[in-house]
Amino acid sequence: MDKSNTVTCTAPVNIAVIKYWGKRDEELILPINSSLSVTLHQDQLKTTTTVATSRSFQEDRIWLNGKEEDITHPRLQSCLREIRRLARKRSNDRDLALDSTCLSHKVHICSVNNFPTAAGLASSAAGFACLVYTLARVFGVEGELSAIARQGSGSACRSMYGGFVQWIMGQKDDGKDSLAQQVEPETHWPELRVLVLVASAERKPVGSTSGMQTSVQTSCLLKRVYVTGLCVQHRAESVVPGRMAEMIEAVQRKDFAAFAELTMKDSNQFHATCLDTYPPIFYLNSVSQQVINLVHRYNRHYGETRLAYTFDAGPNAVIYTLQQHVPEFVQAVEHFFPPETNRGQFIKGLPVNRVALSEELKQAIGLEPMPKGISYIISTKAGPGPRVVEDPTQHLLGSDGLPKKIM
Amino acid sequence: MDKSNTVTCTAPVNIAVIKYWGKRDEELILPINSSLSVTLHQDQLKTTTTVATSRSFQEDRIWLNGKEEDITHPRLQSCLREIRRLARKRSNDRDLALDSTCLSHKVHICSVNNFPTAAGLASSAAGFACLVYTLARVFGVEGELSAIARQGSGSACRSMYGGFVQWIMGQKDDGKDSLAQQVEPETHWPELRVLVLVASAERKPVGSTSGMQTSVQTSCLLKRVYVTGLCVQHRAESVVPGRMAEMIEAVQRKDFAAFAELTMKDSNQFHATCLDTYPPIFYLNSVSQQVINLVHRYNRHYGETRLAYTFDAGPNAVIYTLQQHVPEFVQAVEHFFPPETNRGQFIKGLPVNRVALSEELKQAIGLEPMPKGISYIISTKAGPGPRVVEDPTQHLLGSDGLPKKIM
Repeated sequence: MDKSNTVTCTAPVNIAVIKYWGKRDEELILPINSSLSVTLHQDQLKTTTTVATSRSFQEDRIWLNGKEEDITHPRLQSCLREIRRLARKRSNDRDLALDSTCLSHKVHICSVNNFPTAAGLASSAAGFACLVYTLARVFGVEGELSAIARQGSGSACRSMYGGFVQWIMGQKDDGKDSLAQQVEPETHWPELRVLVLVASAERKPVGSTSGMQTSVQTSCLLKRVYVTGLCVQHRAESVVPGRMAEMIEAVQRKDFAAFAELTMKDSNQFHATCLDTYPPIFYLNSVSQQVINLVHRYNRHYGETRLAYTFDAGPNAVIYTLQQHVPEFVQAVEHFFPPETNRGQFIKGLPVNRVALSEELKQAIGLEPMPKGISYIISTKAGPGPRVVEDPTQHLLGSDGLPKKIM
Repeated sequence: MDKSNTVTCTAPVNIAVIKYWGKRDEELILPINSSLSVTLHQDQLKTTTTVATSRSFQEDRIWLNGKEEDITHPRLQSCLREIRRLARKRSNDRDLALDSTCLSHKVHICSVNNFPTAAGLASSAAGFACLVYTLARVFGVEGELSAIARQGSGSACRSMYGGFVQWIMGQKDDGKDSLAQQVEPETHWPELRVLVLVASAERKPVGSTSGMQTSVQTSCLLKRVYVTGLCVQHRAESVVPGRMAEMIEAVQRKDFAAFAELTMKDSNQFHATCLDTYPPIFYLNSVSQQVINLVHRYNRHYGETRLAYTFDAGPNAVIYTLQQHVPEFVQAVEHFFPPETNRGQFIKGLPVNRVALSEELKQAIGLEPMPKGISYIISTKAGPGPRVVEDPTQHLLGSDGLPKKIM
């Protein structure tokens, strides 16, 4: 196999602060509202994908986290088809015969996450972003790729950029204007910190694709309501546009309180639309509710908004805060969710100093401790977009085009 | 003390199936949407109130559940003032000198519930309905009383009638047209059954008055939203009017499936608006979520809607179903919430036959049992409105105008 036809890349997870929920087109994955996220640093959370092409491959194949999966999945096929289409276009435009040869080759894809899959940590976003970015490198495709990643998993388009990223919903039926765009790079707000509070590594009861469909079909707060003759996509049309503008301004001005309050309100509204679905969907469990109470009481104690929570389609909390508040908040989490492991196992990622917790703060929070409610914390920050891994020893596929044995 | 100046009445609890949430006038208690409820039978749940007047009383006084409370509470004062105003009007109209004398007397009020207070069981509704009904008897006031009860506690106006009752929100600023009205009497749908699943007798963390204020102030789904220049009281203006019409029709046609689905959707939307409040309010806990899942899975197993749940400002579930489904559902509750007490203590109210639960149903529901999640069930049905207790031995106040010792 020709070594030059093997490419390995990494891509990041992103956590939305203005949530994407509800599609206007299932196949093209076009949303009913714009959204905004922070790309997390790949030192802590990333997907790594190797793509190889070879004339000797009999068929397209894919391995995810060590297990071969069905390559005929429609969303995988959308990404492969779109990248090959762009590659063919580029090849025709430039009349490059060599590229055409590679285009006829089958691909082998191998992808791993360094974090648990399907636990509400947006693994599909990092996965599809990495797939599209790596395929693009293999096939020599350049330029705007977020519209292709979007067709794999909506929020994957936001993982194509680092820092603060908006996904502009677009208006066109073909989705050409439904793209991700960087609002600010990861270097813009160096004090911002992200803590992932992993409440449970179990698979969530309702996958977000089917959950989202049910919501759009049944939620009166979300879908078009014809009850009074008016057509109201309430959250999408009346709430989110204003919030997007406010959020972009808060990010640009590095106004933490404004950023935090919008983040919490939008998370709550997202979960409200899930509850207003029929039958209702619950992603927040008792641990999530305790985290929400902890954050509000912590902020109230200090008379300022120092912490924000946000929850996706699962019970894990993601906390946004500033560097100087991390040690005390982590200590508070350890106090109100006494872990069964030692501190080294409880806090992963960026190091966190140990500090004492004042009795005053403990009393002001005044919650009943919930032992083992949180398994561990991942301490991280904003980070860059997808990257090529130059070191060929890092390829996940061996020279035979199959996953390396070490997996 | 003159015996004829002592009156004892009872009044029922009501459980809304289209929820009241949000006031347009705090003082007059005018709602932002109409609502509809079922009045529960007083054999199981009631408030009993005795009112006495005497020229020897020095001041108005009130005892609630055996404890003297502050009579200057604004809502008590509203009810007392309105009843005395109507009595004075009537007295002037008819030129009845005797009534005028009684009007100048102070009142002693004594009230007890036969169920735990402030556990989300609408104790204030039964309480204020009973107070207003009893005061009206004492002062010889007749006619429309729901607008006075409403000024004590909004939902109290619906407890002034039996059966199926709507509270028409009204349009006037003075609230004169914000009244309760019977849709159908309690005899209309004799097969309908109500099961109160008491999840916890603890006091709820957020009282509904302050919760409602926060919601109206902050919920974008509930309050006027000016984000896009439109003024949208979304739930109140766009969702509830249609639901009220559908619910009245479902009740009139005794269409259980339609009644049940609207009930569940409206309960979920109410709790969604609570979650969309900032900071969010959680009334549903893990027991409530398990009840919701149990109901949906039960219905799905039978391919028809045989059960409906609804939750007010607390974790207790109220289940509506038809007589023939009660034994099996109660057995399912006993299976999935294994009680610590015996069956006699677990099921109160109307007797429920014991039946076997099929393995098929247990497997179809497939939830992890939650021991002691539900303390007990109150089995009841729709019932009549407030009643006078003719037997003078039932008075809660003794001939000295003070609560009887037995309390």
